[in-house]
Amino acid sequence: MFLRNTWYVACTPDEIESKPLGRMICGERMVIYRGADGKVAALEDFCPHRGAQLSLGFLRDGQLVCGYHGLTMGPDGKCAAMPGQRVGGIPAIRTYRTIERYGFIWVWPGDQDQADPARLHHLEWAESPEWAYGGGLYHVNCDYRLMIDNLMDLTHETYVHATSIGQPEIEEAAPVTKVNGDEVVTSRYMQNIMPPPFWATALRGNGLADNVKCDRWQVCRFTAPSHVLIDVGVAHAGHGGYDAPAGYKAGSIVVDFITPESETSIWYFWGMARNFAPHDEALTAKIREGQGKIFAEDLSVLEAQQRNLSANPGRRIMSLNIDAGGVQSRKVLDRLIEKERQGSVDQTNSATAHIK
Amino acid sequence: MFLRNTWYVACTPDEIESKPLGRMICGERMVIYRGADGKVAALEDFCPHRGAQLSLGFLRDGQLVCGYHGLTMGPDGKCAAMPGQRVGGIPAIRTYRTIERYGFIWVWPGDQDQADPARLHHLEWAESPEWAYGGGLYHVNCDYRLMIDNLMDLTHETYVHATSIGQPEIEEAAPVTKVNGDEVVTSRYMQNIMPPPFWATALRGNGLADNVKCDRWQVCRFTAPSHVLIDVGVAHAGHGGYDAPAGYKAGSIVVDFITPESETSIWYFWGMARNFAPHDEALTAKIREGQGKIFAEDLSVLEAQQRNLSANPGRRIMSLNIDAGGVQSRKVLDRLIEKERQGSVDQTNSATAHIK
Amino acid sequence: MFLRNTWYVACTPDEIESKPLGRMICGERMVIYRGADGKVAALEDFCPHRGAQLSLGFLRDGQLVCGYHGLTMGPDGKCAAMPGQRVGGIPAIRTYRTIERYGFIWVWPGDQDQADPARLHHLEWAESPEWAYGGGLYHVNCDYRLMIDNLMDLTHETYVHATSIGQPEIEEAAPVTKVNGDEVVTSRYMQNIMPPPFWATALRGNGLADNVKCDRWQVCRFTAPSHVLIDVGVAHAGHGGYDAPAGYKAGSIVVDFITPESETSIWYFWGMARNFAPHDEALTAKIREGQGKIFAEDLSVLEAQQRNLSANPGRRIMSLNIDAGGVQSRKVLDRLIEKERQGSVDQTNSATAHIK
Repeated sequence: MFLRNTWYVACTPDEIESKPLGRMICGERMVIYRGADGKVAALEDFCPHRGAQLSLGFLRDGQLVCGYHGLTMGPDGKCAAMPGQRVGGIPAIRTYRTIERYGFIWVWPGDQDQADPARLHHLEWAESPEWAYGGGLYHVNCDYRLMIDNLMDLTHETYVHATSIGQPEIEEAAPVTKVNGDEVVTSRYMQNIMPPPFWATALRGNGLADNVKCDRWQVCRFTAPSHVLIDVGVAHAGHGGYDAPAGYKAGSIVVDFITPESETSIWYFWGMARNFAPHDEALTAKIREGQGKIFAEDLSVLEAQQRNLSANPGRRIMSLNIDAGGVQSRKVLDRLIEKERQGSVDQTNSATAHIK
Repeated sequence: MFLRNTWYVACTPDEIESKPLGRMICGERMVIYRGADGKVAALEDFCPHRGAQLSLGFLRDGQLVCGYHGLTMGPDGKCAAMPGQRVGGIPAIRTYRTIERYGFIWVWPGDQDQADPARLHHLEWAESPEWAYGGGLYHVNCDYRLMIDNLMDLTHETYVHATSIGQPEIEEAAPVTKVNGDEVVTSRYMQNIMPPPFWATALRGNGLADNVKCDRWQVCRFTAPSHVLIDVGVAHAGHGGYDAPAGYKAGSIVVDFITPESETSIWYFWGMARNFAPHDEALTAKIREGQGKIFAEDLSVLEAQQRNLSANPGRRIMSLNIDAGGVQSRKVLDRLIEKERQGSVDQTNSATAHIK
Repeated sequence: MFLRNTWYVACTPDEIESKPLGRMICGERMVIYRGADGKVAALEDFCPHRGAQLSLGFLRDGQLVCGYHGLTMGPDGKCAAMPGQRVGGIPAIRTYRTIERYGFIWVWPGDQDQADPARLHHLEWAESPEWAYGGGLYHVNCDYRLMIDNLMDLTHETYVHATSIGQPEIEEAAPVTKVNGDEVVTSRYMQNIMPPPFWATALRGNGLADNVKCDRWQVCRFTAPSHVLIDVGVAHAGHGGYDAPAGYKAGSIVVDFITPESETSIWYFWGMARNFAPHDEALTAKIREGQGKIFAEDLSVLEAQQRNLSANPGRRIMSLNIDAGGVQSRKVLDRLIEKERQGSVDQTNSATAHIK
């Protein structure tokens, strides 16, 4: 159960550098490639001739060619040419609108008439030279909402990530959750604690002492349907915490774009954006490596949770105080999905009315 | 179709030495661990908070802690504590009674009110200093009754274990099957034959000549629902066979505890108990290694048989003379399973009557 | 949906040289072996005793012995002997008629009463000393008809086999399809073109210049239900093409025997028969190796196509001009399968009438 009329991250540009990419998003099997004009196209991964997988084909002068019998497909889903064959009668395949922005390719899997570029979130850190970004991609066999729950309740850090970013003080600081329209914010502030290993490294990376008491913050922002951006960081204690001057802190934004593949699997684009030492590429690589290891720890937990839930379909799970962020995020999702469903019913009724 | 109100071997103590163990028994996913008081607990492997797999968690001072958000679970299935959280409203999860005895952890997967320690079989060899035991565990993808059939008809040794314990004389000696209540005994005696390689080794291990004619015996005892203990051995011919004095024979008990995992898979605890040279640990290791290799030969046969039967669900299989042990064992099982089903119906009716 | 009353290639003699072979054909699990009299037998791969897989057994003096309890099976499907057991009451298992001819074992999976050796295709190249043959076997997860489509439309060579036998001129020459009863022939002739790498090698192998313009031909012959034999070759241009004298050409027959395993998987016996240099075994090996690599290129294409079609069950695929060979072949198949179905209904009715 996912929202379809929205922009999801489909892939990163490097994934379509040399050949077409096959990827399922919201149950739709797509082939994604960069066309002759440099624009990224996404089509059904199904050759209209005999059903071959177009993503096994190749690009010739920026045109997608089926690897089986050589149909050349246009970015409009129509067969543009085929050797020795008239192609007018070949039915077009489905196309998906895409946007390339912020270092990602975004796709709209739902009703293409509603695909509005203005509805893409603005990501300031992705366009500013004062910020650096590094990240990666994991495939995880779980419902995308389990990942949202995970990210909106960082209590789990103490257990799942005990050796890097976890520390007992996290669970001693109660989180506060607020809902602003379609956005949910869960904040947690810890005062006067020692920085855990990951943050000690970050302090050193920013030229700061790592063996002093700090204030730490985690501000998780869910934006429907599946983005979680988390302000995280530490500041030397007593300088204002989150609001401390740059010279006293190391902070960053944990970036999580969660793209449903199916009801029980996701493409998880994770990364970190930081606004200190933005040109230090070695630091970017080091942070990326560390984050990759930490985020991999969640995979086995979430996949086992999904197996347990799938094996116990009727079973109720609990929502405690710490789950407020996930609970509110799911409420926003439920409301938007119901609205989308209703809109699609209205459209059908309206279409029927026209016919009559 | 298995009996649920009975004691099954769940695991051996070494399997829960350092961390909780996740294991499915009779379709129930359990987490098994040794608690603070040294007693073994078995709970549903499902965290009552969000459904995480508790067996991926850890033990802190003998208490099971969920690896996701740190719920501390009591052996009574109730959440004992959680950082920053009141836990009174968290529903308890299912618990399973366990017994640790004879070198095994036993679990009762059915109605916990009926779990009666007195119903655990007495295993004399497991408590006597005159006996040594070595064994192992195999996971096999077959109905547990196919393994019972296998063990109650050792004719297969000649074919499946031709190079170790098989010999043509086995199939020439007709087995005799007797039923005593819930126990089935199939006996086979061979006179004046050469010992096959495994038994030649055992004779030497007991300081006896291995190149002389012997009498050999196999007495298979099925005890419902899934134990098969087999008296096996050889004695120098003419000294009384099974009843020969200790100085003329090498004998042992093949131990088979067959625990259903699902309808078509089992946890197979196999081993050998012997009452000669009980302190010779090198001999124990050697026998264990030999037995492990021999018993592994059954796996591919049984898994292929299961695949064949699953692919031909309506198909009748034959029961010949040699199958009497398995046939009678299945009759006992059917009777007990029907009785258990009936008892559970009675309970439901009685409960309904009370409500009225 | 396959024809059952027909001869399919089951295996090659080398596959049953030392032990019985288990193979599923048209959904029937068979054990195939060479009996005492040298004749090949095919039985259900299901021991009538307890359902063990007979192909895990062994041969003793040309008799199939079950590896579990030693039942000796006759080629008539009856249990011939069993140690210490009367076997008269053991039901016979199904048998399948076989023919060994042309270097293959052929089996008739359908109604055994209709199994007529005269209905086996005559393959002249397989019996003549003027021809040499080399080939192999691939297992492919696709409907057998996708492989027929593939072979009846060689346009795909330009894309799938671009570096060996593909060349743009193929798709420029329109194919012509004719139907003769149950046979479909699709022909394609190319004039005055350079030979692609595979054919350049073949010309050299036949002692001919490889750097001159040639005429090339592809004559695909489908014979129901699943043989595609393709006359292929090149001749130095201007000498008559397909009809050129032997001294000017290199030609061969691509041999494709497609045996359905299930609705979506096949045993694909491929090879090449040639009538030049028939005793040059090194050349046979070289061609076989080259063909094996080329034909392996089809596997991923066909398996991806099958996945796409299975994921879109209701979806129509197109038939273009180039598909005429496959389209006509499927029409022949549909007609024969319907006739077989009708015949089996008639038989049932007739049997019912007799009973009345």
